[in-house]
Amino acid sequence: MKKELLVVKIGGNVIDDDGALDDFLKNFSRLTQPAILVHGGGKLATELAAQLNIPQQMVEGRRITDAETLKVVTMVYAGFVNKNIVAKLQSHGKNALGFSGADADMIRSEKRQNAGFDYGFVGDVKKVNTAFLQEILNENFCPVIAPVTHDGKGQLLNTNADTIAAEVAAALSYDADVSLCYLFEKRGVLRDAEDGSSVINKIDSADYNALKKDGIVHSGMIPKLDNAFRSLSRGVKKVIIAHAGELNDAVSGQAGTTILP
Amino acid sequence: MKKELLVVKIGGNVIDDDGALDDFLKNFSRLTQPAILVHGGGKLATELAAQLNIPQQMVEGRRITDAETLKVVTMVYAGFVNKNIVAKLQSHGKNALGFSGADADMIRSEKRQNAGFDYGFVGDVKKVNTAFLQEILNENFCPVIAPVTHDGKGQLLNTNADTIAAEVAAALSYDADVSLCYLFEKRGVLRDAEDGSSVINKIDSADYNALKKDGIVHSGMIPKLDNAFRSLSRGVKKVIIAHAGELNDAVSGQAGTTILP
Repeated sequence: MKKELLVVKIGGNVIDDDGALDDFLKNFSRLTQPAILVHGGGKLATELAAQLNIPQQMVEGRRITDAETLKVVTMVYAGFVNKNIVAKLQSHGKNALGFSGADADMIRSEKRQNAGFDYGFVGDVKKVNTAFLQEILNENFCPVIAPVTHDGKGQLLNTNADTIAAEVAAALSYDADVSLCYLFEKRGVLRDAEDGSSVINKIDSADYNALKKDGIVHSGMIPKLDNAFRSLSRGVKKVIIAHAGELNDAVSGQAGTTILP
Repeated sequence: MKKELLVVKIGGNVIDDDGALDDFLKNFSRLTQPAILVHGGGKLATELAAQLNIPQQMVEGRRITDAETLKVVTMVYAGFVNKNIVAKLQSHGKNALGFSGADADMIRSEKRQNAGFDYGFVGDVKKVNTAFLQEILNENFCPVIAPVTHDGKGQLLNTNADTIAAEVAAALSYDADVSLCYLFEKRGVLRDAEDGSSVINKIDSADYNALKKDGIVHSGMIPKLDNAFRSLSRGVKKVIIAHAGELNDAVSGQAGTTILP
């Protein structure tokens, strides 16, 4: 039987809310199964860029990353956010080990090209170094991954944290039963966007088609769910979308939305 | 016979000079013996603090570290500098792995107290996790350590990079023949401060007493050499002080100053 593994991505409003982040990290540190944490930090990067008068431009939710912006995201994601999360997890007894994709050649990426648009120093994931991740998981370390990767030629690249979580989850699915868990500020996929309690507990591909047909799932939620089903088709066992405050219940299927093949 | 190990600290004007840093990293990546790299980044931290209007105060070469300054040094040391060094070493074929002291509980420190002065979030090293460092060295990873540590209670602490290099070198001396190498912008300990070619090739404790008595070694060089002899008394085999551009010759004793017991 394969081992269980959780890949958890936190972002949204959790990272820059000290209280919420600390609560989340306490809960995360109580998980008994092996887990990898992937974090964002976009709001803090935007704040620092504003303080430094570096204009920011977003295209379809992606940050156009010039050299100055790359410096900002590297400092914020791989420095401030990553090391504070690691130090807090250590204080909760979790032996955390923080990484960028450059460390141990963990995540190799390629500068985005021919997108009809120059995103600057943005990288698309090419390869995840599963051997090293498995080794440190086997030794009970908890990898904490910042969304900065490298191209192997000395260039760091800004890479979407949701994508990193999906790529890491898929890559590790050969050897483990991976649950991929996206935590944010909503309680899951909602039947009624105005009603936080209308969480849809389970969605499989038949449900998804019906939900789309009925217009219940629409706009911004469609790419999220398409990505979830893509992860499932790559071997991930389930994808969970839930509120960061409900990690433990979400993992056991009692909160959030669980997406199954 | 014990294994050889190099602990190399770079700082001074190397970190913020892209060309010099790249040359150094190329040479460093060609080393055949296992090596640990410890880096500073103080000048870049001072620059960022100035851009953010965070006043900086230095006392005896140590940075008074309030909460805002801790954020700056964490971003610059553990983020920007560490990840750029790691990405460049990877491009030169060296499998680098960047750390702060919080990662894998590598370096535990204690907030400095009763110093007759409040240094803020500055940590004095209490314990180096040698088991983990040895393990990753055995697997041919090259640890790259940023001078940010933690207290085990969730607090990051700014810690002097020279001290980290000395503590790591001493801690690993039980199992390896450690050479501790401080690289900076001068060519070693000079007989005549005005003459860059007057490098003293070797200093042992008898030489040191004579050099002090004759006034050849004085002022700022005395604490550096005292620290070097303290490392030797803790098991380090030799301490090398040399120019960052002369790493390979310094390691083989053909450049810089080698300090022996």
